[in-house]
Amino acid sequence: MARGDTGPDFIEALARGLDVIRAFQPGRPVMSLTEVAAATGLARPTARRILLTLQELGYARSAQGGFALTPRVLELGVSYVRSTGLWEVARPHLERLVAQTRESSSIAQLDGSDIVYVARVAVPKIVALSVQIGTRFPAMQTSLGKVLLAALPPDELERVLAEPSRSGIEPRWRPDQRERDAVLREVRAKGWALTDEQLALGIRSVAAPLRDGSGTVIAAVNVNSHAAETSLEKLTEEHLPLLLKTAGAISADWALYESVPQVTAS
Amino acid sequence: MARGDTGPDFIEALARGLDVIRAFQPGRPVMSLTEVAAATGLARPTARRILLTLQELGYARSAQGGFALTPRVLELGVSYVRSTGLWEVARPHLERLVAQTRESSSIAQLDGSDIVYVARVAVPKIVALSVQIGTRFPAMQTSLGKVLLAALPPDELERVLAEPSRSGIEPRWRPDQRERDAVLREVRAKGWALTDEQLALGIRSVAAPLRDGSGTVIAAVNVNSHAAETSLEKLTEEHLPLLLKTAGAISADWALYESVPQVTAS
Repeated sequence: MARGDTGPDFIEALARGLDVIRAFQPGRPVMSLTEVAAATGLARPTARRILLTLQELGYARSAQGGFALTPRVLELGVSYVRSTGLWEVARPHLERLVAQTRESSSIAQLDGSDIVYVARVAVPKIVALSVQIGTRFPAMQTSLGKVLLAALPPDELERVLAEPSRSGIEPRWRPDQRERDAVLREVRAKGWALTDEQLALGIRSVAAPLRDGSGTVIAAVNVNSHAAETSLEKLTEEHLPLLLKTAGAISADWALYESVPQVTAS
Repeated sequence: MARGDTGPDFIEALARGLDVIRAFQPGRPVMSLTEVAAATGLARPTARRILLTLQELGYARSAQGGFALTPRVLELGVSYVRSTGLWEVARPHLERLVAQTRESSSIAQLDGSDIVYVARVAVPKIVALSVQIGTRFPAMQTSLGKVLLAALPPDELERVLAEPSRSGIEPRWRPDQRERDAVLREVRAKGWALTDEQLALGIRSVAAPLRDGSGTVIAAVNVNSHAAETSLEKLTEEHLPLLLKTAGAISADWALYESVPQVTAS
């Protein structure tokens, strides 16, 4: 993977190691050394040393025909979710909202031009949008993303949207700059966002911002529904008021949580 | 962090970088350079270079008073969950089980002497065991862990249980070797395991193994309930048969999934 302006402090070995972890693709639990080298653009001896290091650290294991990741890799992602503390604060509120609406609810943050799901409470349904923690979607086509983009200063917005999506998803709706700015102005004014089948057919959602004690938007929370089951009217007339109340309650708890020193795990 | 027998292929810079990611603790979204150095046992210049590298790669950002992780870190954990494909195979079955039992259901795998949750479908309840993907518990005190430990060859079992738990949890129940072996023999014979408040007061669960086409146990699935809400009889008479049927259905689908070549994401 080509990298630009790296500077004297950049540790190439760390960058390559993280690339190798990310090289394990959907439905490919076992990859051969050759496949890992090809997927990362690394020389075979380099890829081999990285895989052996990951194996010694317990993040990978040798498997028939190559190498596989181990569940220990999850510790890395969990570090992020736990460190923010947002999940623990939001959980009871999200669970109450889901019990009231009987729809799934998620919290997301921005990463480049994508949103990344950091927390979710799902309604057990056989048919459901395949979303789990860490899933990413193009921000502009989701209600969560519109809320997060609307909170950025203008230059930051342009910088973020210039980054290519890492989601692998081709959205149905592709607004030009004029349409985009009109949508975000409306979101800023209303304080919430709607997406009606702009990302994918059949999916309809509303989102609201989560703020800290300074009023800064730190994340967004949504109610997600199936267009075939939940009308636009039900979503905006019944679910949205509950969502706005929940977003305020989470934000208030978060402001309180942030303002007291946390006990560090021993 | 002291490491043993590393060998000429071991890449210290990669090991240290992963330690820095894991150093971000619950409720500590921002850590200063000094805190990261202290938590990892690294010299400050080394910790600084690692943090700057993670920042350049988009895994960390500078924040008031130090550094914070970004949601991009979740991509690493997601690599593992996605690569196995087990979640996609298990999802519809787990959702059906949760709709039938109105209890939460999880899938876990072993990592040393711990279990790690790799998939979960939760019933939206205000009070719930705080479990998310990546959470770990000592294996021997959970129904999922008993099923996984019972499937290990004797020497592997001793090796695994000799590893200290990374969960930070002090279990209520601490069996000696004799009691442990008796429990695991019973699990092997019955084909499922029960835990009744051995990990924590108020939590009661049953678990069954998931197998691949060769009959090897690849993971375990459970039904988890609150002792105050669900009697032991209801758990074993009503939920257990549904769990055993679900475990067989997931295993059969997984054996089929494994036997056909997967289309690689482009």
